[in-house]
Amino acid sequence: MSRLAGLQCRECGQRYPLQPIHVCELCFGPLEVTYNYDVIRAQVSRASIAAGPQTIWRYRALLPVDDEPVVESYAGCTPLVKADNLGKLWGLRNLYVKNDTVNPTFSFKDRPVAIAATRARAFGFETFACASTGNLAAAVAAAAVRAGLRAVVFIPADLEASKILNSAVYAPTIVAVTGTYDDVNRLCSEIAEKYGWAFANINVRPYYAEGSKTLAFEVAEQLGWRAPDHAIVPTASGSMFTKIWKGFQELYKVGLLEEPPRTRMTVAQAAGCGPIAAAFARGSLEVEPVKPHTIAKSLAIGNPADGYYSLRIIQETGGWALGVSDAEIVEG
Amino acid sequence: MSRLAGLQCRECGQRYPLQPIHVCELCFGPLEVTYNYDVIRAQVSRASIAAGPQTIWRYRALLPVDDEPVVESYAGCTPLVKADNLGKLWGLRNLYVKNDTVNPTFSFKDRPVAIAATRARAFGFETFACASTGNLAAAVAAAAVRAGLRAVVFIPADLEASKILNSAVYAPTIVAVTGTYDDVNRLCSEIAEKYGWAFANINVRPYYAEGSKTLAFEVAEQLGWRAPDHAIVPTASGSMFTKIWKGFQELYKVGLLEEPPRTRMTVAQAAGCGPIAAAFARGSLEVEPVKPHTIAKSLAIGNPADGYYSLRIIQETGGWALGVSDAEIVEG
Repeated sequence: MSRLAGLQCRECGQRYPLQPIHVCELCFGPLEVTYNYDVIRAQVSRASIAAGPQTIWRYRALLPVDDEPVVESYAGCTPLVKADNLGKLWGLRNLYVKNDTVNPTFSFKDRPVAIAATRARAFGFETFACASTGNLAAAVAAAAVRAGLRAVVFIPADLEASKILNSAVYAPTIVAVTGTYDDVNRLCSEIAEKYGWAFANINVRPYYAEGSKTLAFEVAEQLGWRAPDHAIVPTASGSMFTKIWKGFQELYKVGLLEEPPRTRMTVAQAAGCGPIAAAFARGSLEVEPVKPHTIAKSLAIGNPADGYYSLRIIQETGGWALGVSDAEIVEG
Repeated sequence: MSRLAGLQCRECGQRYPLQPIHVCELCFGPLEVTYNYDVIRAQVSRASIAAGPQTIWRYRALLPVDDEPVVESYAGCTPLVKADNLGKLWGLRNLYVKNDTVNPTFSFKDRPVAIAATRARAFGFETFACASTGNLAAAVAAAAVRAGLRAVVFIPADLEASKILNSAVYAPTIVAVTGTYDDVNRLCSEIAEKYGWAFANINVRPYYAEGSKTLAFEVAEQLGWRAPDHAIVPTASGSMFTKIWKGFQELYKVGLLEEPPRTRMTVAQAAGCGPIAAAFARGSLEVEPVKPHTIAKSLAIGNPADGYYSLRIIQETGGWALGVSDAEIVEG
């Protein structure tokens, strides 16, 4: 039996083989990669991980790639910084900050993109693309060069030039689209279908999204193979939030953690775009979309795809959700 | 016998105990930390290093600190990136790039500054300062907060605001000085003496400078405990260049490398500020100071303190020195 079980709809449970698809044909629910954890348990150990590279690929056994060569873009294995000064301020003896700004293109997006690029190449795609307002575009452009794929990044036409410099150094094809980010996104869905391109956050999204689990894997390993008591996660779509929780649980399922994780999972949003925090405050599991108005542009998703799933995790783990003002963000 | 032998003048060989001084009282030559390598050899192994933290402090046995608690600023252990695409272009099968932009304040300066801050605190200083045009200021400001020291950074008054933002987030005292960087530097030497402040690149410089050795330690470890055939080092003062060579040699002296390093050491400078490259082209060991005129501001030191020592190492190892134009730098 293989490590990888296939794709499965999170809504209706329908199963699919591993393909470049992201939406259930029956109910339009999101597809997720599923695993045979007993197979993984027999293959992986703390020692085998320690002997791996200093990148996300040390956790390869728990990632949605098969035997294909991986795109090694040197993502991950970022420092878990013990924040003693900040901890003193708040009366916390063991406060840590995961510094993911020191990834190769300076954001956590390098993690999911390394997996998306690996799978895109294995599926036979020749063009690797994305819709982005900055961070994702840079990660895609960099990974494409390393993977030997053509890169095309779609951005809103009114984006500041400085925000795409980080992509431009990798010389992708940059397409400026007149419209909002949502318009760009819709256009890209059509292009993916029509031209047969791999879009990191569209048709190879189920593989892409799994990359965020590596944040949980690293934190647990850096804490001496323990899940933290509490995790506070900046949240836009909720994808990373749900995957971090999935990551902690998987470590227990495959025997890398001795006890089931009891991490309280908390969502941090910008008050100017906090639909998950607002639902939590109402005591509801239903997210009402908002119109973003915050300087935290990378968190400005008004209609979070994983909002419901995030609220469920908060409820289940005894976590919390809160929106912070732009003034507090600047101060922070 | 202690690991640390003391300070020694690189010119006349005069010895001093470990103090916050950087210039020989007899000949005004630069002081350097010396070690008892037999003591270190008995203490250190590849396994002991592998069991250490994922920061420069895994090489603590080879660094100029005693038993004092170190300032853990999470510097070092940056990726050694295998640059296959670039290698193909040049016909090189094993080309690597050390990506030191992913240090905590985004430059290699975090390495020497972690050591300088550790020693400054151990010597009893309460203020940790530097003269800088950007990178060093950020590293000093960040390390001071972590060390519980007051930070003061001196910058030329005409420096762009954007260049000091990276420091300002750590809220140091920022002093803008009317004059050139050289003026700032001279002023700081006087202040260090008068107020009893620790300046990273002045009175605790012998400890500070040793931090660059960790680049050599990491590269060798990342290559499976082998020194590279050839190292190409961007060079301003020549300090990092000479320390990288010292680092490779030390690994052999303490038994971490099986063979003496045969690395060809090559200096890369900006053509608009390439006094070492110019001396090399003339076949001379004597550096003639130049007036910098290049966009590579961080490499713009017209009178490199370690120019002579760098040229000696190039000669000894069969290396090379070259200045590249601003156009080539932009293209790169």
